[in-house]
Amino acid sequence: MKKIKIINGANINILGLREKEHYGTFTYDDLLNYYKELEKKYSIKIDPFQSNIEGEIVNAIQEARDDDALIINPAGYTHTSVVMLDALLSLEIPIIEVHLSNIHKREDFRATSITARAASGIIAGFGKESYALAVKYLCEL
Amino acid sequence: MKKIKIINGANINILGLREKEHYGTFTYDDLLNYYKELEKKYSIKIDPFQSNIEGEIVNAIQEARDDDALIINPAGYTHTSVVMLDALLSLEIPIIEVHLSNIHKREDFRATSITARAASGIIAGFGKESYALAVKYLCEL
Amino acid sequence: MKKIKIINGANINILGLREKEHYGTFTYDDLLNYYKELEKKYSIKIDPFQSNIEGEIVNAIQEARDDDALIINPAGYTHTSVVMLDALLSLEIPIIEVHLSNIHKREDFRATSITARAASGIIAGFGKESYALAVKYLCEL
Amino acid sequence: MKKIKIINGANINILGLREKEHYGTFTYDDLLNYYKELEKKYSIKIDPFQSNIEGEIVNAIQEARDDDALIINPAGYTHTSVVMLDALLSLEIPIIEVHLSNIHKREDFRATSITARAASGIIAGFGKESYALAVKYLCEL
Amino acid sequence: MKKIKIINGANINILGLREKEHYGTFTYDDLLNYYKELEKKYSIKIDPFQSNIEGEIVNAIQEARDDDALIINPAGYTHTSVVMLDALLSLEIPIIEVHLSNIHKREDFRATSITARAASGIIAGFGKESYALAVKYLCEL
Amino acid sequence: MKKIKIINGANINILGLREKEHYGTFTYDDLLNYYKELEKKYSIKIDPFQSNIEGEIVNAIQEARDDDALIINPAGYTHTSVVMLDALLSLEIPIIEVHLSNIHKREDFRATSITARAASGIIAGFGKESYALAVKYLCEL
Amino acid sequence: MKKIKIINGANINILGLREKEHYGTFTYDDLLNYYKELEKKYSIKIDPFQSNIEGEIVNAIQEARDDDALIINPAGYTHTSVVMLDALLSLEIPIIEVHLSNIHKREDFRATSITARAASGIIAGFGKESYALAVKYLCEL
Amino acid sequence: MKKIKIINGANINILGLREKEHYGTFTYDDLLNYYKELEKKYSIKIDPFQSNIEGEIVNAIQEARDDDALIINPAGYTHTSVVMLDALLSLEIPIIEVHLSNIHKREDFRATSITARAASGIIAGFGKESYALAVKYLCEL
Amino acid sequence: MKKIKIINGANINILGLREKEHYGTFTYDDLLNYYKELEKKYSIKIDPFQSNIEGEIVNAIQEARDDDALIINPAGYTHTSVVMLDALLSLEIPIIEVHLSNIHKREDFRATSITARAASGIIAGFGKESYALAVKYLCEL
Amino acid sequence: MKKIKIINGANINILGLREKEHYGTFTYDDLLNYYKELEKKYSIKIDPFQSNIEGEIVNAIQEARDDDALIINPAGYTHTSVVMLDALLSLEIPIIEVHLSNIHKREDFRATSITARAASGIIAGFGKESYALAVKYLCEL
Amino acid sequence: MKKIKIINGANINILGLREKEHYGTFTYDDLLNYYKELEKKYSIKIDPFQSNIEGEIVNAIQEARDDDALIINPAGYTHTSVVMLDALLSLEIPIIEVHLSNIHKREDFRATSITARAASGIIAGFGKESYALAVKYLCEL
Amino acid sequence: MKKIKIINGANINILGLREKEHYGTFTYDDLLNYYKELEKKYSIKIDPFQSNIEGEIVNAIQEARDDDALIINPAGYTHTSVVMLDALLSLEIPIIEVHLSNIHKREDFRATSITARAASGIIAGFGKESYALAVKYLCEL
Repeated sequence: MKKIKIINGANINILGLREKEHYGTFTYDDLLNYYKELEKKYSIKIDPFQSNIEGEIVNAIQEARDDDALIINPAGYTHTSVVMLDALLSLEIPIIEVHLSNIHKREDFRATSITARAASGIIAGFGKESYALAVKYLCEL
Repeated sequence: MKKIKIINGANINILGLREKEHYGTFTYDDLLNYYKELEKKYSIKIDPFQSNIEGEIVNAIQEARDDDALIINPAGYTHTSVVMLDALLSLEIPIIEVHLSNIHKREDFRATSITARAASGIIAGFGKESYALAVKYLCEL
Repeated sequence: MKKIKIINGANINILGLREKEHYGTFTYDDLLNYYKELEKKYSIKIDPFQSNIEGEIVNAIQEARDDDALIINPAGYTHTSVVMLDALLSLEIPIIEVHLSNIHKREDFRATSITARAASGIIAGFGKESYALAVKYLCEL
Repeated sequence: MKKIKIINGANINILGLREKEHYGTFTYDDLLNYYKELEKKYSIKIDPFQSNIEGEIVNAIQEARDDDALIINPAGYTHTSVVMLDALLSLEIPIIEVHLSNIHKREDFRATSITARAASGIIAGFGKESYALAVKYLCEL
Repeated sequence: MKKIKIINGANINILGLREKEHYGTFTYDDLLNYYKELEKKYSIKIDPFQSNIEGEIVNAIQEARDDDALIINPAGYTHTSVVMLDALLSLEIPIIEVHLSNIHKREDFRATSITARAASGIIAGFGKESYALAVKYLCEL
Repeated sequence: MKKIKIINGANINILGLREKEHYGTFTYDDLLNYYKELEKKYSIKIDPFQSNIEGEIVNAIQEARDDDALIINPAGYTHTSVVMLDALLSLEIPIIEVHLSNIHKREDFRATSITARAASGIIAGFGKESYALAVKYLCEL
Repeated sequence: MKKIKIINGANINILGLREKEHYGTFTYDDLLNYYKELEKKYSIKIDPFQSNIEGEIVNAIQEARDDDALIINPAGYTHTSVVMLDALLSLEIPIIEVHLSNIHKREDFRATSITARAASGIIAGFGKESYALAVKYLCEL
Repeated sequence: MKKIKIINGANINILGLREKEHYGTFTYDDLLNYYKELEKKYSIKIDPFQSNIEGEIVNAIQEARDDDALIINPAGYTHTSVVMLDALLSLEIPIIEVHLSNIHKREDFRATSITARAASGIIAGFGKESYALAVKYLCEL
Repeated sequence: MKKIKIINGANINILGLREKEHYGTFTYDDLLNYYKELEKKYSIKIDPFQSNIEGEIVNAIQEARDDDALIINPAGYTHTSVVMLDALLSLEIPIIEVHLSNIHKREDFRATSITARAASGIIAGFGKESYALAVKYLCEL
Repeated sequence: MKKIKIINGANINILGLREKEHYGTFTYDDLLNYYKELEKKYSIKIDPFQSNIEGEIVNAIQEARDDDALIINPAGYTHTSVVMLDALLSLEIPIIEVHLSNIHKREDFRATSITARAASGIIAGFGKESYALAVKYLCEL
Repeated sequence: MKKIKIINGANINILGLREKEHYGTFTYDDLLNYYKELEKKYSIKIDPFQSNIEGEIVNAIQEARDDDALIINPAGYTHTSVVMLDALLSLEIPIIEVHLSNIHKREDFRATSITARAASGIIAGFGKESYALAVKYLCEL
Repeated sequence: MKKIKIINGANINILGLREKEHYGTFTYDDLLNYYKELEKKYSIKIDPFQSNIEGEIVNAIQEARDDDALIINPAGYTHTSVVMLDALLSLEIPIIEVHLSNIHKREDFRATSITARAASGIIAGFGKESYALAVKYLCEL
């Protein structure tokens, strides 16, 4: 049974409370439930992790070494985090970077991704389905 | 029956001949056959279009007005084409921008997307499966 | 009888369909009719041309050599087209660059004009009347 | 009877004395006479104002509140004046920015306009006729 | 017998009409005749192509796959065309970029070449002889 | 009795007329009355000055030499005025820079302050209370 | 009774030990005592929080959701923290950003504030009184 | 008898009061007396003018048309004033730009001069003797 | 007996697992053993600390106040961390910044160091010996 | 008999020893022999000069005044040398800048040429044949 | 008797041969004769030095240690030479930087001076008289 | 017996005379003596070279080909010298770049190193001991 780590970065824990024009009212608990659906649908094990602390995310990335794949939404750290990039570069498993919203439609400083340099691919702008598409790719394609 | 236009930009017609380290040996004909598989799988009509000419792509975008959705891989025009952005902004159907390779892993000038400002979402780095994920999103999610 | 070529660039053919907050519901056909009014009013011949293809616009500019004047709205090519600039520089007739909207009120990348370096003058922000003012200048002033 | 304020910025009072390759020998008095012709032709009242002092121009802009329209040639202040922009933004009447010469044909620092962000439209490069076109637009179009 | 494709970009078809201070009065027809001289002198077949349309040049580059060498003067597209760069990168034959004038002596935006990244070498500033030198290199050296 | 000069820069005289989404309907007269309240509350003498002319503000700053403190809202001159900075640097009394609105929430060019280099402190974003907080600091803290 | 959270960022815990030319010898304990004075004076509850860890500050910001207001001194994170900005944007209570020193008087990289985009107002340069002015505004004005 | 206009820009009227590390205790009155010495020594008429208002300096520059030469210290306007540049460009008499201090030894924004583009020469860093050297050049060399 | 704190930043804990072309197969445990050798050789006490969390490193820096010296390898935080710079600036003991690899040989964003502004010296590119050289300097030179 | 000076800049004397992936094993002595072949072939006199010292190259350029033409490979000085540019600008003979490798295929800082502003033409990327093409142009074309 | 070293940088030895529109036909020998006139007029010893080699100029600057003053025209090295700046910073005698032409009237890269950071003052644009004014200042003022 | 070349760049010959706040009173002769101590201590041969001339340093670097290692302090050439970089890239022996002072603590233009791209490692900020640490690394580690 395939094991996929999903790491969510800063402020994803308050989804539904912040910037509703970009993210809607869907909450982090809703997201966790959605992961359970995906687990069933694809017969996989999803290991979710969320933190607002950059270094804890680095820890979690390092620990993904023995998982089968990593899906990561670096959120606000996307645009600046060299340490997350370095941690991702140490992995040899497939890595997919996802974003809930389209990062090209917002402020200029959100249009760049430092962390994506270490990813196999990027999926952005599909809300919770960004995760579903990543899972589908990892499991079926 | 849903009708999806898929527009491929410059040099996609010689896939398999160019820069094999980024794109492999998969050809444009292989891609067209892959679309047929997707048509069957999702019971949709895919209307593929490819051109190396920026303005013809603008024309094709404009004509997508009556389709149900548009998947576009602007290829080399991604980084500079204001006219394709303007054409995309005139549409009211869902638009997904796809890329075969991860644009963040190559030269700096390939890491930005002008056209993505008009897209709902972006999927990059999954080879032919970038298209499959886009179709899946449009049909099932 | 004076002959004036009017060249409209990319996406002007779908005026009225795109970005209505900037351009209203006036269509390209309305624009062509408006040109007919101007022809009558000023007793001139207007030769309209529109294309979404940069190189075809270059062709049309070259062919304006024997006209009495050129009015050009380069639209989305305004900000990047060196080849249109080069073609305009080859002409010896009066050239007026027009824009429907005020290019200084939108995204930063729309505030610069490469092509205007070759124009006698610029008229921007008056909708269809931008063309009328240009015609008036060429015919009466 | 329509009342239009025309504000001319720094050094317009010495037109004809400066940089003749850009502006010719036409003087500010010639310009004032030309305004009188326009008054007759369009049956309007033109209220001309010229100052070399940025803040006095701000004052004049503020006082245009009760006029029917404002035509402004900010001259050398075009490229830097935030205070004139702020004053213009406080008006609710039509504002047209005019320039005697084509600002895209000169030094790079003259190719940008801060003040144009507050204008309805821009007319540049037609010498004294830049004003005539602006008046025509305000009166007839 | 060696076959060399020579591709000329935008506005080369009106050589002799434009910017005479940079290009003189030599025309495109003169250039074609000059190619004939080169054909004789070097016992080669030259296959000339000219277009103002970026994408057609991309097509022509792609079709050069089976020629023995490619000489290309991208003209105004030199400084911006990613799609021509991509097409050139797909070739495995020798590519020489030529320019009629010295691109370092003109406006700043003409001093850079995107397309030259894919060339074996560059020859610029020798007028029609730029082509002759390229042919000589390909045939004799 | 402490004497505090309050200098307001360009367009503050038309508060309430301009950009109501940023400044509301509070007028400059209201502001002057509010200063009177502050005079009573803190038993101080407030000497208000407003000008749209950069150089007159420089004069007023120079004249503040013998006051006990200076509160200055440079308004549109905040971002560019080296001469106001120089005048402020010549004073040895406490200087507080105030802004009605939060300069970090608007256009990029409003997010920098040249003049603040000479201030003891900055208070921005509190409307008329920005002045009250400055007065309080000078009188009580 | 109003409850105000005061968040202090990195290195504020060693106030008095660092860079005395900018901050003096006042310690973080002195600051906490000063908050107690403010609690008494304004009959409020102040809930102080300090951390050197960016993500813990994000946590604390998120938890301020139910407080009446937030005063935040992001310290060294002011200039770079997108994640703190995102957390602040999720709040609907008044937010005041304070700084002990005038950030415009130091190195260039300290003159910008990412976090201030989410604040109602900013108060900088008054030492401990920066907090007092913020509290006063929240309680009295 | 030669007539030389000497224009001093913003804050020169408070020389001796400001930034003594750069300018010493020499006052503007001392400077005027020094001019009298120069008048005697060189048998010339010096017409001094000082203003803090950019536009008044523009006026004074325009009025120098009939003088024999102009010496100008633009002070804080050196680095930004396009309007003073334009006024200087309208003169046909010799223009010398002087500075009391060496503008290359201070903040970066003081190291550039917009106005110097219109000057014959520049003399900077010699205190009051900067003027003496300019006068000497105009009278003897 | 001299006590030296050695702080290692993000991802140093997985040395040997990441980017072997830059760092080889040497692990963090090997590094700790190497420190023990250094302790013996120089008769000192080394107090090693590693964290992936920026703020914990700030804490550790603050706690180094009573050590005799600090050796710090900020790793991925080198290029961005203002808060680590601030913490380092609060120390009065010798600080040496070390890097395993030569930061000038990699991506551009790795060639700058914010934190080095607070260091006495820098040693980069010698692998584990970077630490040895730092210790040698602190103990013998 | 035509006399051509060929100047080679820094490190050309160790051709064959450095960066073999760019320059191969061809040595400077091989290059000098190659010049002898060119002398015979074209019945010219080649006067070769090489130095690693920028100023000596300036001297050599100055001394080329009486030669019939100059071929220069500025090597590492290409990208920065204003003094070589100035020396080249003083000549009235034809100047051709050559490079062994294609400067557009390497690091960004090698893609610009200061010195080429003074050249008639540029030939780059053909190894030793770059010199041959330059000679051919000077002698035959 | 005062001893003044005058150092002239690259290409000053061919004055009169180069760029006559900027420098006229005055030669370096003429300049040396002019120095002799200055020696007589001011009863001083002038020690002239000229080199095209940056490092020799550094040597000459170092040797000026025991002179009474240094006048330096760095010519093309003005804009880039850190080593000349460092040498100048080591002197304790007065240093005046002179230029024959006004460096603000030419290409942008000539408008900055690295070396001037170490000078007492700058005199530019007066041809040979630039030296005379420098001497006058050193001897009489 | 190991032979190490030590190259010192511009102005190191006047150590002790220049910028004492950065370099102290230690002279170049002291440095040479210090090298002798190192020779004894490590039983090596040190071959010191110093020049102010960039090209002579290039020569010296080239000649280091047969030494066992190279220690280089490029001094003022560190930040700009492409030719020294090219020479260093031609070597196959270990290269260590040293600096007496910490280049990150001074002017911005001193914080970058072009030459370090070719070095194995960098040691900066330890005065004469920078050389000792480099020697130690080369001999013992």
